[in-house]
Amino acid sequence: MAAGVRQRVYEALEPRAREGLGLSLANKFLVLCIIVASALAILDTEPMVSAGREPAFRLAELAFGVIFSVEYLLRLWIAPDNPHWARFRFPRLRYAFSVQAIIDLLAILPTLFAFGGGGSVLLRFFRVLRILRLAKLGRMSTAWQDLAAALSERRHELILTISIAGFVLLVSSTLMYWAEADAQPDKFGSIPRAMWWCIVTLTTVGYGDVFPVTMLGKSLAGLVALAGIGLIAMPTGILAAAFSDVVQRRREALRKAAEQRALSSPSQPGPSA
Amino acid sequence: MAAGVRQRVYEALEPRAREGLGLSLANKFLVLCIIVASALAILDTEPMVSAGREPAFRLAELAFGVIFSVEYLLRLWIAPDNPHWARFRFPRLRYAFSVQAIIDLLAILPTLFAFGGGGSVLLRFFRVLRILRLAKLGRMSTAWQDLAAALSERRHELILTISIAGFVLLVSSTLMYWAEADAQPDKFGSIPRAMWWCIVTLTTVGYGDVFPVTMLGKSLAGLVALAGIGLIAMPTGILAAAFSDVVQRRREALRKAAEQRALSSPSQPGPSA
Amino acid sequence: MAAGVRQRVYEALEPRAREGLGLSLANKFLVLCIIVASALAILDTEPMVSAGREPAFRLAELAFGVIFSVEYLLRLWIAPDNPHWARFRFPRLRYAFSVQAIIDLLAILPTLFAFGGGGSVLLRFFRVLRILRLAKLGRMSTAWQDLAAALSERRHELILTISIAGFVLLVSSTLMYWAEADAQPDKFGSIPRAMWWCIVTLTTVGYGDVFPVTMLGKSLAGLVALAGIGLIAMPTGILAAAFSDVVQRRREALRKAAEQRALSSPSQPGPSA
Amino acid sequence: MAAGVRQRVYEALEPRAREGLGLSLANKFLVLCIIVASALAILDTEPMVSAGREPAFRLAELAFGVIFSVEYLLRLWIAPDNPHWARFRFPRLRYAFSVQAIIDLLAILPTLFAFGGGGSVLLRFFRVLRILRLAKLGRMSTAWQDLAAALSERRHELILTISIAGFVLLVSSTLMYWAEADAQPDKFGSIPRAMWWCIVTLTTVGYGDVFPVTMLGKSLAGLVALAGIGLIAMPTGILAAAFSDVVQRRREALRKAAEQRALSSPSQPGPSA
Repeated sequence: MAAGVRQRVYEALEPRAREGLGLSLANKFLVLCIIVASALAILDTEPMVSAGREPAFRLAELAFGVIFSVEYLLRLWIAPDNPHWARFRFPRLRYAFSVQAIIDLLAILPTLFAFGGGGSVLLRFFRVLRILRLAKLGRMSTAWQDLAAALSERRHELILTISIAGFVLLVSSTLMYWAEADAQPDKFGSIPRAMWWCIVTLTTVGYGDVFPVTMLGKSLAGLVALAGIGLIAMPTGILAAAFSDVVQRRREALRKAAEQRALSSPSQPGPSA
Repeated sequence: MAAGVRQRVYEALEPRAREGLGLSLANKFLVLCIIVASALAILDTEPMVSAGREPAFRLAELAFGVIFSVEYLLRLWIAPDNPHWARFRFPRLRYAFSVQAIIDLLAILPTLFAFGGGGSVLLRFFRVLRILRLAKLGRMSTAWQDLAAALSERRHELILTISIAGFVLLVSSTLMYWAEADAQPDKFGSIPRAMWWCIVTLTTVGYGDVFPVTMLGKSLAGLVALAGIGLIAMPTGILAAAFSDVVQRRREALRKAAEQRALSSPSQPGPSA
Repeated sequence: MAAGVRQRVYEALEPRAREGLGLSLANKFLVLCIIVASALAILDTEPMVSAGREPAFRLAELAFGVIFSVEYLLRLWIAPDNPHWARFRFPRLRYAFSVQAIIDLLAILPTLFAFGGGGSVLLRFFRVLRILRLAKLGRMSTAWQDLAAALSERRHELILTISIAGFVLLVSSTLMYWAEADAQPDKFGSIPRAMWWCIVTLTTVGYGDVFPVTMLGKSLAGLVALAGIGLIAMPTGILAAAFSDVVQRRREALRKAAEQRALSSPSQPGPSA
Repeated sequence: MAAGVRQRVYEALEPRAREGLGLSLANKFLVLCIIVASALAILDTEPMVSAGREPAFRLAELAFGVIFSVEYLLRLWIAPDNPHWARFRFPRLRYAFSVQAIIDLLAILPTLFAFGGGGSVLLRFFRVLRILRLAKLGRMSTAWQDLAAALSERRHELILTISIAGFVLLVSSTLMYWAEADAQPDKFGSIPRAMWWCIVTLTTVGYGDVFPVTMLGKSLAGLVALAGIGLIAMPTGILAAAFSDVVQRRREALRKAAEQRALSSPSQPGPSA
């Protein structure tokens, strides 16, 4: 009987065990929990919101901790039902060392340590960990695998354009260090410092915390900006194109699935006739 | 006879009742009124322009209020002539609850309350409402429906890219909160505060009111800027592409209408011969 | 005999009178004069360069004034040789009122008045006029006519996208005026003032002289930036595409001319054989 | 025997002498040396890193100087083995005046002078020279020749778009000088000074060190920004497209080489059967 229960739990928790599109009720609930827990974790960091409401935030955190712990244990329990892990001798042990299982475990940690107090650095580390619960969503969608495939196809371009961008960054920083180091030693006094100016300028962000003041520096900066902006944007463009590919493919898949449903619906009354 | 007058008023006010391209004289006058009223509403907010000219501005506002009130009542009167509303039992009541009729009603409100004085918050609310009179122009063009169609076609991409952009925003904010919260608690002291930096940086606006100061923060910010700028621009790009589609389609339609006129013109002297 | 001289002057000064590609020696000299005169006019405004060298700058200005005056008179003299002006009854009078002739006349003015001293406003006006001598170059190339044609083809898109950009600008300014007028009356106290923020933000320039400080203002600004940046860039993109078309066409023309030369060169030794 | 050794050294050092893809072990070691030497040269400029570690940095510099000197002498020695230089009467002398050989010589200079002390200007010059050792990597890849070819194909567009960008820059600077010179003489007091504002604005960097303050200046700046941003980005776009072409071609080449290996691998067991 336990095997029957386990099978049903497996079908409720493993997105790939479902035939149709969409998530099971259990997974929909978990997605909601992840989103609400992340939203609370974000608001918790803002004193204007959390001040005076610490007990409520701790209670919610505890509740989510319990839910995610139960989820973790259940997923460990059903690992042998998953054909992927069933191949191994100790499916649960193997599963426990999978990326998703480790993410699930890390997502429980913040709850365990949230009540221990501790210094501000440790506290902030656990708060950041809570946001990373969003990574638990990765299991729910195949988009990440699609993205990895799209990036892998373009890896040669990515490496070449990152090299070009890195070279542009390095030469620009060296030139600006050469031109401005005397005038502004705290901002251009070394090549790594000049690199901050370079990134801020070549991405066209331009905060205004660092800019050239000498004639030579301004002239060089103008040339660097005019020539370099397109080059630094190249890896960014390839990254965005890879994401765009994924978006396109998923749209295509959704359209095909919708077409197939439309095709199969009229044939359903057929056999009943 | 009243029906004959109503029919003629209907043909003058309803853009879809006209066969040819372009607007009727009455609608051209209304477009002019909307534009002038909006321009005056904008200038009215600027003390350098409006100071000492309050009576003139109030008089103009009153005149436009009367014009828009008359328009509102006339449109209510002619609703039964419109096949779209004639289908219903109470066409005028139905029309009165349509989006355009409510916009028309809201566009009269600022005039009614403009002379009651009132505090600065209420005053500003009615001033903003006056600018929204521009929404009255929506009736004059089918571009909004084209745009809605173009956006609906791309809704899957929009949702996916907004999710990606949101995820990039969240992870970047969390990382910068982690790196800079101690050094600049007022600017990076919580994840929502760090989000302002993230939006300003990833859109490449870069005001310079917030920027990292620590070594770790600068390094992370550089990586975030280099990797994230393309991703945050994706929904923006899809939005712009949808607008661009509309522009393309309308251009095509204008070209075809011009061709058809060119084709029908040479045949006109034909029958007269 | 004067007619023969005039014909030769016409062939030397009118770019369209030459059969081959490229400019005549006289026009090459004039192009050089225009560029050098403009460069000097630019440097003349910079006190660090011009201080103490005023006599040299005045002498050069005088020389260029004489050259441009002689050019103006010669062009007036040869107008009857140009088939375009020869059609009219008074070809020289007609030519004198053409755009290019008026530009030529305006380009002499700064020299005439340069020695009269005068206040700083008048002085600056003539300095600016000197830079506009660059417009004299317009005659040398057909690129401007190509550009006008490319822009005219896309006028419908330009008008539509400028309308969209204007609407986005107006709505954004109104929203930010509503949100920030109380907190920063000098920067967001009226809709025209908020418009400066809007342009600086939506073009992603982001000087940092104006930015929202309230919670509501920052949230609205974030949404405006994320949604609006692509839309404001649309007319800019169409303008750039029109320029790009011109560049493409001229490249094509240059390639064809080169091919034709290559085709006609081998046939030249043919008849000699 | 020396010729046999020289032949082997030639095959180890000259990338084109190798048949297969990839670099020889000797060249891989040199690439590593160049990268490490450049990284050290970058870190050496940062006092936070180099302070107190000067002896270690000098030692490393000395080691790289010896390695690069040996490489230089060996490359000089093997020049007659290279068919390219063997054509000439004095192959070694000819090689010594090639671009790569001069770069190699310049890359040794910083070591020779590093221990002579000297003022800050000279010191910085040699430090910058050390970064330029990265140019030694040029020999290892044919990407530079591909890039030169891609740029040469687009030279007409580059010249035309740079002219347009220059014209936009000049007219914008002149207009802003005209509008703002009185209000901000230190920032817009001359056309070259206004040009700095123009570059910073039209590339959308927008540091915020210079921006218009007058009504007229802000209006003009808004128009310049809206109209000019697309035009200034045109040469940048062509440059990026040329780089992108190179990336595309190299990817194609890598794919073909991989296919050829895949095709030739199955045929290898063929003859053995």
